[in-house]
Amino acid sequence: MTQLLNLQPAAAATLQKWHEMMAKLDLSDLPLIVHPEVTFRSPLAFNPYASVEAMVMALQTVVTVFSDFSYHREAATDDGLSVVLEFSAKIAGKGVKGADLIRFDTEGRIVDFEVMVRPLNGLIALSEEMGKRMGDRMPSYKAKA
Amino acid sequence: MTQLLNLQPAAAATLQKWHEMMAKLDLSDLPLIVHPEVTFRSPLAFNPYASVEAMVMALQTVVTVFSDFSYHREAATDDGLSVVLEFSAKIAGKGVKGADLIRFDTEGRIVDFEVMVRPLNGLIALSEEMGKRMGDRMPSYKAKA
Repeated sequence: MTQLLNLQPAAAATLQKWHEMMAKLDLSDLPLIVHPEVTFRSPLAFNPYASVEAMVMALQTVVTVFSDFSYHREAATDDGLSVVLEFSAKIAGKGVKGADLIRFDTEGRIVDFEVMVRPLNGLIALSEEMGKRMGDRMPSYKAKA
Repeated sequence: MTQLLNLQPAAAATLQKWHEMMAKLDLSDLPLIVHPEVTFRSPLAFNPYASVEAMVMALQTVVTVFSDFSYHREAATDDGLSVVLEFSAKIAGKGVKGADLIRFDTEGRIVDFEVMVRPLNGLIALSEEMGKRMGDRMPSYKAKA
């Protein structure tokens, strides 16, 4: 794993752990690297979720929906506290591209995690597959934005 | 305009021109900073467009669809040849977030431009508004990916 030159060391260590979790498709240790009041911004809904439980539930479900998942370019902000991870995957056979926009605090904890996915038909497929798997198990939105 | 530390000078100069065009909402000079065979990846369709004309037409239409457009975080890859620009906007009254993923060649020309938008209802609104404005004026897809 290359390390982003610009990223602060604590954030880089967290990013490394994130990649290890994603390689195993097991996000159960996510609370160890996430701020308890993390803001999670789904590609499906505008209002963010404001809990680590919601983030774990959503992402653990997402990894079962994606197949052929790969990360590509990584970009860092000049303050060394945000990264963007470009990815590709398939959802129900449809090719998608996406990006994770992740902000860390100075202790390296993830404080904001935003996911974007294109194109439209892939995002609709994601919505359908998430609905099948999660039903109404997702906690209510807490609007923060 | 802050300049991304990591970005190669030719790419940084192009990014500066891009921001000047977006500030004026006038993309008519876009061909001056874009490779003639640029790959443009819309948030709506998976297959990319492989022409600068299609990119100009699409983006010039997009800027009439967005209101309250603002850029936020900027991130650069370690090779200094890609940036990600985070943005927010409104489409038909709906709040959206998005990202431009831009790759430059060593001469600073844009060779790949990808746009992602969330959430789903905002992306659907974008599709509807683009359809109203462009109809079938968009050239046929050229599948490159």
